Amino acid sequence: MITSTSSFRESAPEPRRAPALWPLSPSGIAYGCDYNPDQWDAATWREDVRLMAQAGVNLVSFGMFSWANIEPRRGEYHFEWLDEVFDVLHDAGIAIDLATPTAAPPAWFLREFPEARVVDRTLTPLGPNSRGSACPASPVFREHALRITRALAERYGQHPALAMWHVHNEYGLPVSESFTPEAQQAFRDWTRVRYGSLDAVNTAWGMAFWGQTLGDWEDITGPVPSPSIVNPSLQLDWRRFNSDLLLSNYVAERDALREVTPHIPITTNFHSCPWVDQWRWAQEVDVVATDHYLRASDARGHVDLAQTADLTRSVAQGHPWMLMEHSTSGVNWQPRNIAKNAGEMARNSLSHLGRGADAIMFFQWRASVKGAEKFHSAMLPHGGTDTRIWREVCDLGEQLSRLDDLRGSRVQAQVAVLLDWNSQWAQDLEWRPSIDLTHGEQTARWYDRLWRDHITADFAHPEADLSSYRAVFAPASYLLTDVAAANLRNYVAGGGTLVVGPFSGVVDENDGVRAGGWNAALAEVLGVRVQEYCPLRGEDSARLQYRGGETLVADVWTEDLMVTDAEVLAHYVDGPRPGQPAITRHGFGAGSAWYVASDLSAEDLAPVFTDVYDTADVFSPELPDGVEVIVRAGDAGAFATVINHSDHGHQITVPGTDVLMQIAAGEALVQRL
Amino acid sequence: MITSTSSFRESAPEPRRAPALWPLSPSGIAYGCDYNPDQWDAATWREDVRLMAQAGVNLVSFGMFSWANIEPRRGEYHFEWLDEVFDVLHDAGIAIDLATPTAAPPAWFLREFPEARVVDRTLTPLGPNSRGSACPASPVFREHALRITRALAERYGQHPALAMWHVHNEYGLPVSESFTPEAQQAFRDWTRVRYGSLDAVNTAWGMAFWGQTLGDWEDITGPVPSPSIVNPSLQLDWRRFNSDLLLSNYVAERDALREVTPHIPITTNFHSCPWVDQWRWAQEVDVVATDHYLRASDARGHVDLAQTADLTRSVAQGHPWMLMEHSTSGVNWQPRNIAKNAGEMARNSLSHLGRGADAIMFFQWRASVKGAEKFHSAMLPHGGTDTRIWREVCDLGEQLSRLDDLRGSRVQAQVAVLLDWNSQWAQDLEWRPSIDLTHGEQTARWYDRLWRDHITADFAHPEADLSSYRAVFAPASYLLTDVAAANLRNYVAGGGTLVVGPFSGVVDENDGVRAGGWNAALAEVLGVRVQEYCPLRGEDSARLQYRGGETLVADVWTEDLMVTDAEVLAHYVDGPRPGQPAITRHGFGAGSAWYVASDLSAEDLAPVFTDVYDTADVFSPELPDGVEVIVRAGDAGAFATVINHSDHGHQITVPGTDVLMQIAAGEALVQRL
Amino acid sequence: MITSTSSFRESAPEPRRAPALWPLSPSGIAYGCDYNPDQWDAATWREDVRLMAQAGVNLVSFGMFSWANIEPRRGEYHFEWLDEVFDVLHDAGIAIDLATPTAAPPAWFLREFPEARVVDRTLTPLGPNSRGSACPASPVFREHALRITRALAERYGQHPALAMWHVHNEYGLPVSESFTPEAQQAFRDWTRVRYGSLDAVNTAWGMAFWGQTLGDWEDITGPVPSPSIVNPSLQLDWRRFNSDLLLSNYVAERDALREVTPHIPITTNFHSCPWVDQWRWAQEVDVVATDHYLRASDARGHVDLAQTADLTRSVAQGHPWMLMEHSTSGVNWQPRNIAKNAGEMARNSLSHLGRGADAIMFFQWRASVKGAEKFHSAMLPHGGTDTRIWREVCDLGEQLSRLDDLRGSRVQAQVAVLLDWNSQWAQDLEWRPSIDLTHGEQTARWYDRLWRDHITADFAHPEADLSSYRAVFAPASYLLTDVAAANLRNYVAGGGTLVVGPFSGVVDENDGVRAGGWNAALAEVLGVRVQEYCPLRGEDSARLQYRGGETLVADVWTEDLMVTDAEVLAHYVDGPRPGQPAITRHGFGAGSAWYVASDLSAEDLAPVFTDVYDTADVFSPELPDGVEVIVRAGDAGAFATVINHSDHGHQITVPGTDVLMQIAAGEALVQRL
Repeated sequence: MITSTSSFRESAPEPRRAPALWPLSPSGIAYGCDYNPDQWDAATWREDVRLMAQAGVNLVSFGMFSWANIEPRRGEYHFEWLDEVFDVLHDAGIAIDLATPTAAPPAWFLREFPEARVVDRTLTPLGPNSRGSACPASPVFREHALRITRALAERYGQHPALAMWHVHNEYGLPVSESFTPEAQQAFRDWTRVRYGSLDAVNTAWGMAFWGQTLGDWEDITGPVPSPSIVNPSLQLDWRRFNSDLLLSNYVAERDALREVTPHIPITTNFHSCPWVDQWRWAQEVDVVATDHYLRASDARGHVDLAQTADLTRSVAQGHPWMLMEHSTSGVNWQPRNIAKNAGEMARNSLSHLGRGADAIMFFQWRASVKGAEKFHSAMLPHGGTDTRIWREVCDLGEQLSRLDDLRGSRVQAQVAVLLDWNSQWAQDLEWRPSIDLTHGEQTARWYDRLWRDHITADFAHPEADLSSYRAVFAPASYLLTDVAAANLRNYVAGGGTLVVGPFSGVVDENDGVRAGGWNAALAEVLGVRVQEYCPLRGEDSARLQYRGGETLVADVWTEDLMVTDAEVLAHYVDGPRPGQPAITRHGFGAGSAWYVASDLSAEDLAPVFTDVYDTADVFSPELPDGVEVIVRAGDAGAFATVINHSDHGHQITVPGTDVLMQIAAGEALVQRL
Repeated sequence: MITSTSSFRESAPEPRRAPALWPLSPSGIAYGCDYNPDQWDAATWREDVRLMAQAGVNLVSFGMFSWANIEPRRGEYHFEWLDEVFDVLHDAGIAIDLATPTAAPPAWFLREFPEARVVDRTLTPLGPNSRGSACPASPVFREHALRITRALAERYGQHPALAMWHVHNEYGLPVSESFTPEAQQAFRDWTRVRYGSLDAVNTAWGMAFWGQTLGDWEDITGPVPSPSIVNPSLQLDWRRFNSDLLLSNYVAERDALREVTPHIPITTNFHSCPWVDQWRWAQEVDVVATDHYLRASDARGHVDLAQTADLTRSVAQGHPWMLMEHSTSGVNWQPRNIAKNAGEMARNSLSHLGRGADAIMFFQWRASVKGAEKFHSAMLPHGGTDTRIWREVCDLGEQLSRLDDLRGSRVQAQVAVLLDWNSQWAQDLEWRPSIDLTHGEQTARWYDRLWRDHITADFAHPEADLSSYRAVFAPASYLLTDVAAANLRNYVAGGGTLVVGPFSGVVDENDGVRAGGWNAALAEVLGVRVQEYCPLRGEDSARLQYRGGETLVADVWTEDLMVTDAEVLAHYVDGPRPGQPAITRHGFGAGSAWYVASDLSAEDLAPVFTDVYDTADVFSPELPDGVEVIVRAGDAGAFATVINHSDHGHQITVPGTDVLMQIAAGEALVQRL
Repeated sequence: MITSTSSFRESAPEPRRAPALWPLSPSGIAYGCDYNPDQWDAATWREDVRLMAQAGVNLVSFGMFSWANIEPRRGEYHFEWLDEVFDVLHDAGIAIDLATPTAAPPAWFLREFPEARVVDRTLTPLGPNSRGSACPASPVFREHALRITRALAERYGQHPALAMWHVHNEYGLPVSESFTPEAQQAFRDWTRVRYGSLDAVNTAWGMAFWGQTLGDWEDITGPVPSPSIVNPSLQLDWRRFNSDLLLSNYVAERDALREVTPHIPITTNFHSCPWVDQWRWAQEVDVVATDHYLRASDARGHVDLAQTADLTRSVAQGHPWMLMEHSTSGVNWQPRNIAKNAGEMARNSLSHLGRGADAIMFFQWRASVKGAEKFHSAMLPHGGTDTRIWREVCDLGEQLSRLDDLRGSRVQAQVAVLLDWNSQWAQDLEWRPSIDLTHGEQTARWYDRLWRDHITADFAHPEADLSSYRAVFAPASYLLTDVAAANLRNYVAGGGTLVVGPFSGVVDENDGVRAGGWNAALAEVLGVRVQEYCPLRGEDSARLQYRGGETLVADVWTEDLMVTDAEVLAHYVDGPRPGQPAITRHGFGAGSAWYVASDLSAEDLAPVFTDVYDTADVFSPELPDGVEVIVRAGDAGAFATVINHSDHGHQITVPGTDVLMQIAAGEALVQRL
């Protein structure tokens, strides 16, 4: 059963209770890691805390993989070793973020309850021998998960080292869905709650097409293997349901913990995979935490990092947040795991810090000698303390230890980028006009342009209050609810500057095209109607001429626009619709709405965004390429985090101040203003 | 059980009853579309017929996805809404092609009879939530399909708007096979009928190899997952069986309809997927219909279109046929769905018309707002009537309305291209000499050469009477029956010109190599024996010198030929067999037989085909590149369909006449001669 | 149950009993093929032996696919036809290598015992309709396999034509593993034998990580589908178990045969697929046999052939071995099956011969007309005797018939290349630093460099006695046992020259990283510690400067080295660690140890290896590029096999002699010295 807590409500996030909770300790910036003492003996634990002290570690997160060691056989608890770990850490003054171990149920659980295994999209049951092995809809899993959770709360809830709870681990990864009978029944229940009647479901999903009209609630199933593609509205709701189902798992564990230890803040670690709606989830945690790993194939991974940090701050409603995991160097689970260069770990860490993180944590403390992740870097590498990584880990700890005043300070952003997981889920389904235009890449390119222009951005839900932003960018708003469409209209009418990317405003919340044509939700505010989407063949591109000058290039996407009431800023020079409009601007009410109907690279977006900044009075500071400056301000003053990703030293002026600074090649530092 | 109707007979098609039946109405060229009124309310239906009248629509096809709405629960019929649709259309003078809805069984059917679901090649049951969800061998599906078919026939058989029946939809797509126990039993039954004894099966399939000799009929299964590849002769028969099994489904519905409404012509819509043997199927329909969609990745998709149209006319034995579905612009199910350019829809439509179609229909009338295909273009786009597409739809309707006299006229072809689905199925199995030489691409390249040379071609089964053709092209005759081999020999001996492509005449009807070597079936008529197939590595190519002059290039395939009695026209310059023969010509009886032992591009085929035309007295008209002219003639006169695919206007003389014409860039028109 | 014979022991191979057994006949070099008389009638058999005599065939191997024809229904034996084949061959003086037919159980077996089918990694049961269709852990399969094996031994054990037994066929192909309940139980049993206690398993596999600690033997399963990757140590043991399980199948059949016919030597044919540990298997056969096929995509396939031949001789401890299968021309199971050029078959055959094979056999005698492999070349092609292939087959037979004195002679190698299947299995698991650095390619590149330098190499297990080699190359020793590490250290200390490739000495026998850092096993002997692995992005490369001169290129891999006590021969010029060491040399004891920390092409290895040869006093003869010379010597004298792969004739001096020879382009010959 879906509890009322997780019943569906699609809307902008509520403002969170303020101030957000924060781990009971440490008192300054938290610095630490996942710790897996299960892999080592007690002598090693003592060596570990000695070295943690040397590195400046003041918070460790552990227990996520300890269920089998705590309860090696059903009902047989072994807390002694964990008691000792608590004491060893506490003696060293290191605070504990204790995880519930429910992301890794023990082998005996899966053996005794094989029906609780995850069933994948091919209908294959999964496990054991890995992690993430229980179906989130399994009642027996829920029962055992709450049992072990309560046992931990009761045993350690009053331990002085306990600073916070860490529920489960990376919900949605590696398991974001399951096709057990229980999961499909839960989807049926969820659908009934959301729609009330079967007629409403048939209408919402458009089941008349392809003759799929449902005659009974029992007809509802998840997107099981099918001869052709599964109804897309059903698939979108399946995504929503799974985000909600996982959330109900989180909430159940959280409530169990809160009952026993109402004084301890509770979190779970978000991550970059798109299967949980962080806007909704963030309302249920006491402090927002996230994991971030560089994509090794991306030589500009620090921009993706900045995007994730800004997003995490935004889902936290601007409150400080925790970077729960990142890596000191390469990871192990990508095709090619690129080691970090000297200084890169510190640059990564300070970029998170500058963008609002008050905790910098790594996976993991000591490199594993066996198992799936032994090639993952750690704070303490296989090579021990006579290594570059260890020296950099200690330096960073030292640097953070001098930044107590930074804690709790806030970042101010002039602009917002719209992001809604519902829109991402819908846009990236099959059978869209082109596989080449993805939500993720569109968003990343637009964010990258802002990053290059040294403009700090918030992310915002399209239904959120946007009035504080000088400009709002909507790179990939394929799905807009009626409320969101009205919100954007009101934002512009009230004087805002809205910049909309291609393939936006296409569908309503149920992936339905609105009466009035493709972009009916935005047609009036943009002054443009989309007649057709005109994607390009894989080998083709199309050129645009911007304001009679620069030539810009669309690699995958063009549109056939009919301008009803807008200024045409760029035309297509060639491609499917030569001579027709490609970029437009429309004065609407007190504001203006721009439409960029093609994918453009971060480079090619430059002249367009520059004009947007002029229109919207957005301040784009003069800074060298590759130098990142973010300002946090709070009761204890203002701080500039300055990071030099380039190969050259620079002298800069901190934007908005007259503070002059030297920053060496590759350097990262925090400067009190 | 396999009914006698579908018992196996592999041979050239019988001449069809003449004249072919034709929809009872409309009286001129049919123009229309799939119509899915289930998705809309009654007010929209009235708006629809008003706009249909404006567009010139005179025939609509509907009902293929209506089962769930007609019978939302088992045995509970709701015909009222369909009655109203019939009346609304009839009042507007629009004829109806009523589909049986058996391609989309309702959700309740799959829930009540889960054993009727399709089981795919990985042994996974498929559905629901999509279309094509019943196993064609399921007795309970057959029972329910015939029940709903009879119910429709009884209710609407006498309705004055009913012009024809449309059985099921695109048999073979998305389901061309199923691995249920029932399907495998049906395969066993089919095999028993075809071979009589198990010894005969073992011999036909060569089961002694790899020790697979069958000891009992029960040992026969379909090509289920297996440690290595499955016996290819079995796989070929599995393809034949599935084509026959689907045909038996069609025949059962057809016979049920014919019993109630003997006066109404019956069809089903073929399509480009290769899983039904259209030569056999065409004998069972009253009028041949097909669907055609451009492959978006192919910038020369209009040549593929022409090929499909010529093939459809050919399986229809030259009788007019119906284009049951194409698109006004882009589709939605390809990786990149390219929108059509201005005029392209009319060029596409008229190319079908010129090649024998007397009905031009689209999928679909009004763009769907939800479901799998909402990004598919339609006659009435999401943007409504103030769109380029709508204007072109109306123009085309107007153009067709002036062509009543064209109806029933015939196309005359000088040459034939051999095509046999059995050969395609066999050639494209695994473990051939190279994955790069496919039946489809070889056929397309040779057809493309004829298209560029402005030569209208029929397609012919290799066992068919070829005596009316000046030249016969066999681009990909991997499999030739003994009857076909004798037929080709007799054709040449009787004075014909036969041009054979690489990897031809390799196997008999059971995928067995004949005694005498690789090309024993053709060795005597070609005067050439193939010693070895010598495909090329992916990165390699080989050059041929043709008649001491032009250099031609083989990209994937060469052969080691031993010339016994032929003139060598080209040698390999390099590649695996430098200096050895590559293209030969052999005078045989009163005719000549050519062998082209390599894959050549359409460009490189030019000098070879030019020589063939000279030999065979094939008329290759002088026309500009990209201008397509096809002549139809009938009782009401002769008509040239002229289509200009190029970017320039041209003045042309209609081949075989002295009619001079102007044709603008992109224009398509029909000219009475 | 796992018999004691196959209980696990990971160590260097024992010296084999000497002299190795050899087929009872023929008396000279064996020349022949797989023979599949089941596919033909008795008249063809008589034609076959007539042509075999013409070709010089003196040994044929048959029966591997005959089970269904010998026992078409359970318990119903039909030996008559096989009796006749025996007699026909014997009358022609052709010796018989009789295969047990257990690689192809009959259709009735799989029908009657569906539980004996293989279950693949997706948990799908496989078969019938192919080969390799029984689970090697199935008791009922074992029972029936031994029954048919004994029946054959009893019937033909005393037949005068019987020269040897050929057990099964290519163990591990196409089935190297199975996931039936019986197979998983066997894995449990095997694990219990290997580790004794569950604690030992948990430790060996590092199950504390990801919380996978096993609480009961029943918790052990094979690497079934799982939400994330399966524990790598478990996967490595799964590979070992499967090699052992297959070996126990072999041993069971062998022992059954030996009981009945103790006088007949027994073999099974190895092959290039990596799933059996040939070092272990070779101890259980009387004579080592292997199959080798060129990879068609590799234009330098003759180097891979030489590598396989040297490896086969090495696992045979230097004894002569049998080439059980290769091809006269192209095969059928690769994407593009390249036909051999004139002379290539003889060059291939003589390369095997020169490298120690005393039997040259083909798959197969007469090309199949039906079934999966009819496109595979054969000694007698589809085109019959008037073909290039047939003529070359006869020429080769004639050439071999003059080489009786060669039989039993031995090859001497100056250097060894280390190879351990355990290391290959472990290195090629998922989640290593880069997918681009594979065991196979590293080994092939280093071997290729030796081949280009005309240096004959043995392969050696890392625990073997290496003292006879001037230099030992370890291109890919990711996994080294403690014994192996000590062995290498002792080899160098004792004066040997050891050359170690990148990513070596990383893990112990259980895929565990040793205390002391990444390359702890080799750090002292190399004088180098590895701090980090620094693989490259797909599009990147890194340059090395060697001894201040030549620039070498790493395509996929660099390392971050800390030199503790070694001479640096090359630095990185760019890439992740510019300026840092890339190639080192360390004097250690009486010898020296080299470390090459990057992947280098065979071309770029040249200057490094040249210096190694100088250091180690390895003789690198002056010979033209593409000319292969290998010397065998025995009681009857010494012989040089000389093969010219180039397009030019050459005059050469046989290395180590003053024998001058002419060798024409493409020629292959054996010269008595």
